[in-house]
Amino acid sequence: MKIAVIGTGSVGGTLGRGWARAGHEVVFGTRDPGQADVARLTAESGARAAAVAEAAAGAEVVALAVPWGAVRDALRQAGGLQGKIVLDCTNPLKPDLSGLDIGSSAASAAEQVAAWAPGARVVKIFNSTGFNNMADPRYPEGPAAMLYCGDDAAAKEAAGRLAVDLGFEPIDAGPLAEAPLLEALALLWIHLAYRQQLGREIAFRLMRR
Amino acid sequence: MKIAVIGTGSVGGTLGRGWARAGHEVVFGTRDPGQADVARLTAESGARAAAVAEAAAGAEVVALAVPWGAVRDALRQAGGLQGKIVLDCTNPLKPDLSGLDIGSSAASAAEQVAAWAPGARVVKIFNSTGFNNMADPRYPEGPAAMLYCGDDAAAKEAAGRLAVDLGFEPIDAGPLAEAPLLEALALLWIHLAYRQQLGREIAFRLMRR
Repeated sequence: MKIAVIGTGSVGGTLGRGWARAGHEVVFGTRDPGQADVARLTAESGARAAAVAEAAAGAEVVALAVPWGAVRDALRQAGGLQGKIVLDCTNPLKPDLSGLDIGSSAASAAEQVAAWAPGARVVKIFNSTGFNNMADPRYPEGPAAMLYCGDDAAAKEAAGRLAVDLGFEPIDAGPLAEAPLLEALALLWIHLAYRQQLGREIAFRLMRR
Repeated sequence: MKIAVIGTGSVGGTLGRGWARAGHEVVFGTRDPGQADVARLTAESGARAAAVAEAAAGAEVVALAVPWGAVRDALRQAGGLQGKIVLDCTNPLKPDLSGLDIGSSAASAAEQVAAWAPGARVVKIFNSTGFNNMADPRYPEGPAAMLYCGDDAAAKEAAGRLAVDLGFEPIDAGPLAEAPLLEALALLWIHLAYRQQLGREIAFRLMRR
């Protein structure tokens, strides 16, 4: 697929590298495609970098991987996203990581993203675990779970396949209205990793019997 | 330990049976100790049944396992719980299971319980998975996780041991202020089991590497 990854930090970089390795056509969308960090990322991944508008315009899938405070601007730069699959990988974290603050009356970051990007087929995914698990979701017991939710069946199916491409076990959690639960799951992972000092090499698995 | 289990439904019954089997002294607290269902439960578990006030008075640990709408009344019947360990196993579920509604401005059911039971050492635990997993938390990959949180270290340690007694892997999620995340995790489990039709034989595990 043609994927624009908006954001070149730990999460965006990891997702873009992983999908490029899996054979997808990845373009990193960034405010400064000429930056040294971005040049390193494109050199090592084989992906391109472009301005956000250009990256988004040519993509079927747009993955949002910028800090929550930068999401609205990124969506403005991306321009019209009607019909595109938008993967919301963000979490509306308070600066001290103590909780979530969307900064609006939306029930979740994902629903706020959907309101800001009319016509986009938003899927909440790649928000509930660390970038280290996105780089390698394999654990002794099996792959980590990647929970996702959204209102467009085809968009969700594509998102689930992109999770499989990274090695995750995809778990469909339902409509986009479930996003508050996935954002709470992200905060739980963060608090276990950092506050409870279990470290980043932890991941949830959904077991079945 | 001397444990009062308030509630004789699926969750309360399962917890009480499990702890009685593990050698604890269990008393079910119920409005009607003479009811046929309760008689069956005590006969098969070897636990006793008593009025809520009597059960709570003699207990070191009080496990709340009644529907959210009945919690305040149960706490009133229980009387003073100062110094006791109170395990909040409840979820403030809307009747249609679509979401959570505490019915107050508290951030979580657990924090509301703490406000209603001054001096009690409240631990949120045994709320985030189904009673079937409480009856047997073993899966092929290993034991299911039982996440818990609270503000009293000794109470949390006791709660964690009671999770181990049932076969769970206990995971300390931090202070009682984390309870909203554990209540969201409960709703996620419920939605995966029922709405997403994965069934009740699913459980989260926290993997490490």
